[in-house]
Amino acid sequence: MSNPFFINCGPFNISEIFDTLKIKTKLNKNQIVKDIKDLFSAEKDCITFFHKKKYNEIAKKTKASYCITTQNLKDYLPKNCTPIVVENVLISTSLVTQKFYPNSIEDEYDASAVDIKDTTLKDIVIAGKNVLVGDNVTIGKNCFIGHNSIIERNVQIGDNCKIGSNTILRNSVIKDNVTVLDNCVIGKKGFGFFPSKNKNMRYAHIGIVIINENSEIGCGSTIDRGSLSNTEIGKNTFLDNQIHIAHNVKIGENTIIAGQVGIAGSSIIGNNVKIGGQAGISGHLRVGNNVEIGGGSGVIKDIPDNTKVMGYPAKSIREFLKNNR
Amino acid sequence: MSNPFFINCGPFNISEIFDTLKIKTKLNKNQIVKDIKDLFSAEKDCITFFHKKKYNEIAKKTKASYCITTQNLKDYLPKNCTPIVVENVLISTSLVTQKFYPNSIEDEYDASAVDIKDTTLKDIVIAGKNVLVGDNVTIGKNCFIGHNSIIERNVQIGDNCKIGSNTILRNSVIKDNVTVLDNCVIGKKGFGFFPSKNKNMRYAHIGIVIINENSEIGCGSTIDRGSLSNTEIGKNTFLDNQIHIAHNVKIGENTIIAGQVGIAGSSIIGNNVKIGGQAGISGHLRVGNNVEIGGGSGVIKDIPDNTKVMGYPAKSIREFLKNNR
Amino acid sequence: MSNPFFINCGPFNISEIFDTLKIKTKLNKNQIVKDIKDLFSAEKDCITFFHKKKYNEIAKKTKASYCITTQNLKDYLPKNCTPIVVENVLISTSLVTQKFYPNSIEDEYDASAVDIKDTTLKDIVIAGKNVLVGDNVTIGKNCFIGHNSIIERNVQIGDNCKIGSNTILRNSVIKDNVTVLDNCVIGKKGFGFFPSKNKNMRYAHIGIVIINENSEIGCGSTIDRGSLSNTEIGKNTFLDNQIHIAHNVKIGENTIIAGQVGIAGSSIIGNNVKIGGQAGISGHLRVGNNVEIGGGSGVIKDIPDNTKVMGYPAKSIREFLKNNR
Repeated sequence: MSNPFFINCGPFNISEIFDTLKIKTKLNKNQIVKDIKDLFSAEKDCITFFHKKKYNEIAKKTKASYCITTQNLKDYLPKNCTPIVVENVLISTSLVTQKFYPNSIEDEYDASAVDIKDTTLKDIVIAGKNVLVGDNVTIGKNCFIGHNSIIERNVQIGDNCKIGSNTILRNSVIKDNVTVLDNCVIGKKGFGFFPSKNKNMRYAHIGIVIINENSEIGCGSTIDRGSLSNTEIGKNTFLDNQIHIAHNVKIGENTIIAGQVGIAGSSIIGNNVKIGGQAGISGHLRVGNNVEIGGGSGVIKDIPDNTKVMGYPAKSIREFLKNNR
Repeated sequence: MSNPFFINCGPFNISEIFDTLKIKTKLNKNQIVKDIKDLFSAEKDCITFFHKKKYNEIAKKTKASYCITTQNLKDYLPKNCTPIVVENVLISTSLVTQKFYPNSIEDEYDASAVDIKDTTLKDIVIAGKNVLVGDNVTIGKNCFIGHNSIIERNVQIGDNCKIGSNTILRNSVIKDNVTVLDNCVIGKKGFGFFPSKNKNMRYAHIGIVIINENSEIGCGSTIDRGSLSNTEIGKNTFLDNQIHIAHNVKIGENTIIAGQVGIAGSSIIGNNVKIGGQAGISGHLRVGNNVEIGGGSGVIKDIPDNTKVMGYPAKSIREFLKNNR
Repeated sequence: MSNPFFINCGPFNISEIFDTLKIKTKLNKNQIVKDIKDLFSAEKDCITFFHKKKYNEIAKKTKASYCITTQNLKDYLPKNCTPIVVENVLISTSLVTQKFYPNSIEDEYDASAVDIKDTTLKDIVIAGKNVLVGDNVTIGKNCFIGHNSIIERNVQIGDNCKIGSNTILRNSVIKDNVTVLDNCVIGKKGFGFFPSKNKNMRYAHIGIVIINENSEIGCGSTIDRGSLSNTEIGKNTFLDNQIHIAHNVKIGENTIIAGQVGIAGSSIIGNNVKIGGQAGISGHLRVGNNVEIGGGSGVIKDIPDNTKVMGYPAKSIREFLKNNR
């Protein structure tokens, strides 16, 4: 993933990374590590991580030079990739990600933001009162931004977009013809941390939010950015009010999501999906294409293509209605 | 419905309407059409629509001069009303509504809004910092408006009202003694459109939101305005925080709705109703008077007067508790 | 409960309180009443209330000089405490609370708030644009407050806190190292009133919100202040986005609550609890320590320590999964 938002503080010497992980080693201390990426996108001189056996086919082909992993999994890695064996892969990965991207942990407000009237964007954008924009924001032609909205640093907005009032955008790429209505917060860090007595340990969120062409986001919705991958809304997908989309979620094209729906972290929703109001989808699931999910449903397992489900837990809608006559 | 908010761009010649619908006809091209209204409220020289057989009793008595309908339904119409037969009544109605009310499709922010301190309202209203008001806003005696709130053009507010901070009102009539708390969005267009690959087609929302005397709306709530009818909250009805009321919903008097409830489009809720937290009510339903709906319920069919229901789908509360001992 | 926020308009002569309650009596009219408190915290010269038999052990030991109660309950009170017998204890208590704390009924915006740049706090706090602070706000070292946020009068914020943008704090004590993200409303009055035809009767909310060290509150969340006790979030407890916490709720330490959860009034949640997304917890319940509540659950009875529940109504997770294969 290219990362337009968070500054990579690397490269680091591998010895510095071992220091971060409190590992003593005899490995060559002059080797350089450029970045941290997932197994699939990591290149030579990158570090990656591998924590579940189900990713072994991807692990076998990784181009990374180093991989944070466990004793049990290390033998899946190819010769070009030196395993770094740790007790808890996710915590160690988090520590290394923080080293590369220290500014991605917390979400302080963007102190670079100034009134759009005091920037050159004032001649391009039709903006309300008290609109703030941060450094390095780009906005296309024919865009509207409502009163009191805040476009934080680095956000990219395409042509013909409508941003409502009291809305906050950060760490996001908004494509052409997108509407984001009032009181939304798009692009804050996800709800991700390692629980720890007295002081939880937040982890880095270097993913962004991408909202593709022709989509609409309803009032009061929140879309969190990803941790190591992006959160993405497909083309021509419409979200109603008060929807919550957690980190790393991917939603396909032409999908319709009614009010107060929540989608937990890392789930993947297909194209042409319809989700009724107040439905919830658990994390790390896959909802196929052309699926219909009834209002109020609680989805706790994968849903294959072309099916209609309803209930809590969600099952075939025919079965739901039969059981509930 | 009288419409104080959206400017009627008509009248149009009937031939212009046929052009909009791409219909070729030999009808007299000099007839005038003044407005588009529903079957019941349409008058002479209006156009209306009729798309479901269950409305046939109203259709038989319509005063409209024209009616968009189907081959199957057209014979219910009275002699004074010329049928315009189309394939999809709702899409055709939407096109005609857009023609009359082109500004009711999208919700750009109100560019007419200025700081209340720069208007004559400053002498009438007790207002916080950075309060914006649009053109033609009327506000009664003894009203409070909190910091950063936006009262868009044409909104009418009665006496003794309290509007919180960071709240947005548009296309709404707020009667006397109403409280709207912080971070609400009242009066945006509903979540209504015709799904279409690559580019959904939004339809007009020329209804408004009416909040009647002595009612209260909790923080972070959203109430969408209606499409061809109004969204209305009855007298002395109290809504808790984070509630979503969709377009065309009507809620009666003395009703109490707890936090995070959602009511889908066009449902009608009676008087003296109690709805527990997180309950959801599907669209186009009728919930009677004196009904109690338990927290977390999912209502998917009409509920008669004087009943208590709970569950998903909601059933008699006695049955729910018996099944769940 | 000490009350740093609401001004006690007492002391009152007991005869004035009888007038408020429209009670005629021969009691000594020169006795003074200093404050109204709950049975447990009331001291000599205070008035308290006692409305349910289950509190009789506390009632027997109250130090209050007067107690609003019923004919049936009055004999539990000790000799030092004079019973005031009424028909409806809660309504009478509400009337007396209003007499002592008339400003705790409604939530008008804080008219004392001014731009932080015009206060001495500007040298202590790292604040965005258009940040408003009311009278008598205290803020510790190294705090950040985002754009457009409003810190109303009397709020206390500790060291190293991060308050997001568009967030409103009132009647709250925020301890050290707390993060409150964007678009939250913390400390408004709870959803409490006595239903009454035509005009519901709101009751006083003189409780506050306390958020303890190291906690985090997600975007778009609402936490209401208590009526006669406080609403409190324990140390190192993390809340995700769009969560609603009602009045008088107490949440323990090291607890994790996912998005869109709602907790109804006066419920008590233990330490080390995990609550999945969209779960709801009814009012006046007790959820023990180390409990796990599955996403989407509806909890309608107490949950003992160390149990895992899921479903609506929530039951043992093993049973839920067995019934739903």
